[in-house]
Amino acid sequence: MHPTISQMMAVVAEGREDEIAPLLAEEVQFLPPTYWKTWVGRAPVAAVLGHVGRVFEGFRYRRVMGQGVDWALEFECKIGALDAVGVDLITLDEAGLIVRFEVAMRPLKSVEALRAAMNAAVAGDARFLAFRSALQ
Amino acid sequence: MHPTISQMMAVVAEGREDEIAPLLAEEVQFLPPTYWKTWVGRAPVAAVLGHVGRVFEGFRYRRVMGQGVDWALEFECKIGALDAVGVDLITLDEAGLIVRFEVAMRPLKSVEALRAAMNAAVAGDARFLAFRSALQ
Repeated sequence: MHPTISQMMAVVAEGREDEIAPLLAEEVQFLPPTYWKTWVGRAPVAAVLGHVGRVFEGFRYRRVMGQGVDWALEFECKIGALDAVGVDLITLDEAGLIVRFEVAMRPLKSVEALRAAMNAAVAGDARFLAFRSALQ
Repeated sequence: MHPTISQMMAVVAEGREDEIAPLLAEEVQFLPPTYWKTWVGRAPVAAVLGHVGRVFEGFRYRRVMGQGVDWALEFECKIGALDAVGVDLITLDEAGLIVRFEVAMRPLKSVEALRAAMNAAVAGDARFLAFRSALQ
């Protein structure tokens, strides 16, 4: 497994934002399960991933598939009382940093709960006023 | 790539139900992006996948990751006017047949549209009266 992937698996699940940031490329793109937009840039993406990691409970990676720069990391977790399954679709750059991070999930009801929890988390984080232009 | 995976990529996207069925194990499980339940059995799962393939428009597989019995197939498509991205999370059995087929997708709005379109498709397929017990 690529070392970035194993490091990512250790820190993303726990929302350790300060340890997530060094794994991200400067111009990393994060495509969330909730809406059809893209977060761009290391600081806002690390902040979003930090909140996601803290919203998810009982997070556990399952199968890890891929090689080289292309990786799919299957996971399961809870959002409140609701079960969820998802996949981190990761692309690394030539330096081994995460340049694209797309998340697909199931089922619908759990992603609705995720949207509500993420909206609340971001609304309570003053940095997101400055980060607004990073959502494209 | 495993031959089941390449055959699957050729027929699932087009909803060719009669060609999907021979790729499925007798006791295949299908876990849809829309709800937290599991379809069990070759005939109902082939029927559901047939409808899914016809509901998705402009379907295109992107990256294929995995090896052996574990595969993740990234795709993009449209549901009506809405863009969607998803992943087929596939497990093969020892005979090389698909024994588990779980689908995670994004974003929320597109999965809501998928749910509505699938409900309409299944409501118009009389076989789903008999298939009801296959949804567990």
